Amino acid sequence: MSEIPYKIYLSESEMPKQWYNLRADMKNKPAPLLNPGTLQPMKAEELEGVFCADLVAQELDNDTAHFDIPEEILNFYKMYRPSPLVRAYCLEKKLGTPAKIYYKFEGNNTSGSHKLNSAIAQAYYAKKQGLKGVTTETGAGQWGTALSMACAYFDLDCKVYMVKVSYEQKPFRREVMRTYGASVTPSPSTETEVGRKILAEHPGTTGSLGCAISEAVEKAVSTDGYRYVLGSVLNQVLLHQSIIGLETKIALDKVGEKADIIIGCAGGGSNLGGLISPFMGEKLRGENDYRVIAIEPSSCPSFTRGKFAYDFCDTGMVCPLAKMYTLGSGFIPAPNHAGGLRYHGMSSILSQLYHDGLMEARSYKQTEVFEAAELFARCEGILPAPESSHAIKGAIDEAMKCKESGEEKTIVFGLTGTGYFDMVAYEKFHDGEMTDYVPTDEEIEEYLKKLPKTE
Amino acid sequence: MSEIPYKIYLSESEMPKQWYNLRADMKNKPAPLLNPGTLQPMKAEELEGVFCADLVAQELDNDTAHFDIPEEILNFYKMYRPSPLVRAYCLEKKLGTPAKIYYKFEGNNTSGSHKLNSAIAQAYYAKKQGLKGVTTETGAGQWGTALSMACAYFDLDCKVYMVKVSYEQKPFRREVMRTYGASVTPSPSTETEVGRKILAEHPGTTGSLGCAISEAVEKAVSTDGYRYVLGSVLNQVLLHQSIIGLETKIALDKVGEKADIIIGCAGGGSNLGGLISPFMGEKLRGENDYRVIAIEPSSCPSFTRGKFAYDFCDTGMVCPLAKMYTLGSGFIPAPNHAGGLRYHGMSSILSQLYHDGLMEARSYKQTEVFEAAELFARCEGILPAPESSHAIKGAIDEAMKCKESGEEKTIVFGLTGTGYFDMVAYEKFHDGEMTDYVPTDEEIEEYLKKLPKTE
Repeated sequence: MSEIPYKIYLSESEMPKQWYNLRADMKNKPAPLLNPGTLQPMKAEELEGVFCADLVAQELDNDTAHFDIPEEILNFYKMYRPSPLVRAYCLEKKLGTPAKIYYKFEGNNTSGSHKLNSAIAQAYYAKKQGLKGVTTETGAGQWGTALSMACAYFDLDCKVYMVKVSYEQKPFRREVMRTYGASVTPSPSTETEVGRKILAEHPGTTGSLGCAISEAVEKAVSTDGYRYVLGSVLNQVLLHQSIIGLETKIALDKVGEKADIIIGCAGGGSNLGGLISPFMGEKLRGENDYRVIAIEPSSCPSFTRGKFAYDFCDTGMVCPLAKMYTLGSGFIPAPNHAGGLRYHGMSSILSQLYHDGLMEARSYKQTEVFEAAELFARCEGILPAPESSHAIKGAIDEAMKCKESGEEKTIVFGLTGTGYFDMVAYEKFHDGEMTDYVPTDEEIEEYLKKLPKTE
Repeated sequence: MSEIPYKIYLSESEMPKQWYNLRADMKNKPAPLLNPGTLQPMKAEELEGVFCADLVAQELDNDTAHFDIPEEILNFYKMYRPSPLVRAYCLEKKLGTPAKIYYKFEGNNTSGSHKLNSAIAQAYYAKKQGLKGVTTETGAGQWGTALSMACAYFDLDCKVYMVKVSYEQKPFRREVMRTYGASVTPSPSTETEVGRKILAEHPGTTGSLGCAISEAVEKAVSTDGYRYVLGSVLNQVLLHQSIIGLETKIALDKVGEKADIIIGCAGGGSNLGGLISPFMGEKLRGENDYRVIAIEPSSCPSFTRGKFAYDFCDTGMVCPLAKMYTLGSGFIPAPNHAGGLRYHGMSSILSQLYHDGLMEARSYKQTEVFEAAELFARCEGILPAPESSHAIKGAIDEAMKCKESGEEKTIVFGLTGTGYFDMVAYEKFHDGEMTDYVPTDEEIEEYLKKLPKTE
């Protein structure tokens, strides 16, 4: 047996007490959010109508490197963190690779993913501000679940607009949210103006994430004591998610390992941005070098085939504009696509890093991702979420390159969550009914034509 | 903050290397299994036609106190064990109790429960014997999932007969099993004689656990290189599950705590028997005293309203007879009952301990159990399985007694698993559609009249 244990846990005293703000070490800062009306950078006071004040401050702060994690959040983290850094001995053996593979597993909590790391922070600041509640949207329900858990802990009202088709076809996550006391409304609903308008124009619509965002924002802005919260893309979310990378770094240091390659799946970028934070910080400061690889689905290839430009963050075009790699805010991947990672854009921070050549990106098709997922499940005993399985596929490919070259590289990837609520997708995969969708150049060109003109 | 961490993890070097066989310290040994034909104690050679040889040896051994855990099993355990012993700080605060509450959480693996502890052991011994595969039955699918994971690890064929109604209504666990390469057959099937017979007599039947057991046993006995495996009730299973209690004991010792009350849910007894093993051992040897409380559903009250007698282990009456607390092998709880714990009988070991006054038992109704589950989920962030929630309810009640009396007792309970695949039951609870079923005295009497005559 090797001296390195299967799972590396930090003790409570070893756990990070601060989040790390990657922006502080970036020479080229991420571009600011723009007001969709004036196309001018959003000011704090404009954002504070929608978001909690402390979170706006975090959103706009490109300079402070470290933020103390409030004690209430540290205590909540202790309930489900530290997450284990796992040495994938069984996967390595199965692949016959000389590479050492580690994964940071964020799925051991009821939300089933890393989303809880930011949910609890956002709920805390809402409570601190004396708010009554928060609103949000959710698609498959992972973010909504995380937020409802966080709100239950701080006794905050939680109002979730869930895309109607998911509300009806995926009732399980909806029930998890209800268990945590959240009110879950199928979107579009008659509760908001925008919802009523959409229902009048498209009776029988099954909803979309863009529509749910618009409803959640309207509800927050029009209800006393409420604010809107978002689970990915934003700078503040990457700040909170830095806990993933910070723990990973401490665990690796503890066993005397240095990562060579760091791999994560990328939808809006919250997990990948969090995982790479301290490593990218060292790279930016010239202290260490790492290869960083973002993995995205071929069906929604923001990095690999999108454009670096200002675009709307939502399909409804009511939110601020962000400068990012985007496929156009109208782009929606084929409905047969199983997992998350369906977002048309990407975190501004990661977009800037990619644009500056500091990280790589790669896309995979759905069926090859599920093949990797099944191989991983059988070796490592964890049934991975489709999203996370993109990173697994990336790690396996890098490990197989090591097998060819004989190099003993250390590969670290983020296993963001479990697939317990994704069994319909697994069923399709087992039954041979899963198809791969890759948009044509013409399709993408069509959406990119409609990018807003900001300059 | 207290000095005791939220979660107590053992390091790999602190993990138990042996299982503990409680029977070695029992003055009154559990009664032997009887051959249903001759009513004589089953001999090893009779059992070896159905079960793996090494497991039969474990089943019949009432004297050896400690069994070395084979290295291959220790390595598998390292992938998902040690499970955390959690200090329920948030629940204590919510209840306002001076009691200290700990729970041993067995749900952080893809099978979602403690079942994997015995599944990997049984798969190991099957592999060691050179078998091609194993057969088993599963109801809701927890045991089948655990076994399929274990078989995938050892590259053994795994054939699961799943009660037809569950196969059709609960496709998700079925897909988890398929992910691990198991073949899952809805029972009754046309694959076995007993299945064909039942289908001929009852066309359109949705199956039962008793029928699935009969099919799995027939398949094992009639197929070269196969044996049958079972996830609860048997002595061997409690032996493997002792890992739960042993880890718990080491973790408590590590932080200088001594348990006063130990609580677990009881269906067939595998979790409770495993959790209490080392504590009950001390009690039997007169080294320490503990209160041990088994919690069962009011709908299936084997301990609290059953009879201590020889009975068939299966509804089909093809398996050996065991002496146990039983409601009669024909007893089936109302179909509206959500969780597991639906077994008519109980582990012979636990039955003997209860008969000898060494442990207590208590039953709860379904809705009060779900109320406890929801309270727990909101405080502690874990969505519990309905089965596990019986233990939560028991622990909360004991903690509230401490609040009244002002006693600072230490309560330890087993949280056997997560409820991610039980959301239909939670939905009924949220919608006020959950009902409580308690069998009448007459009903129970009716089934007990049919107990086999063995003396």
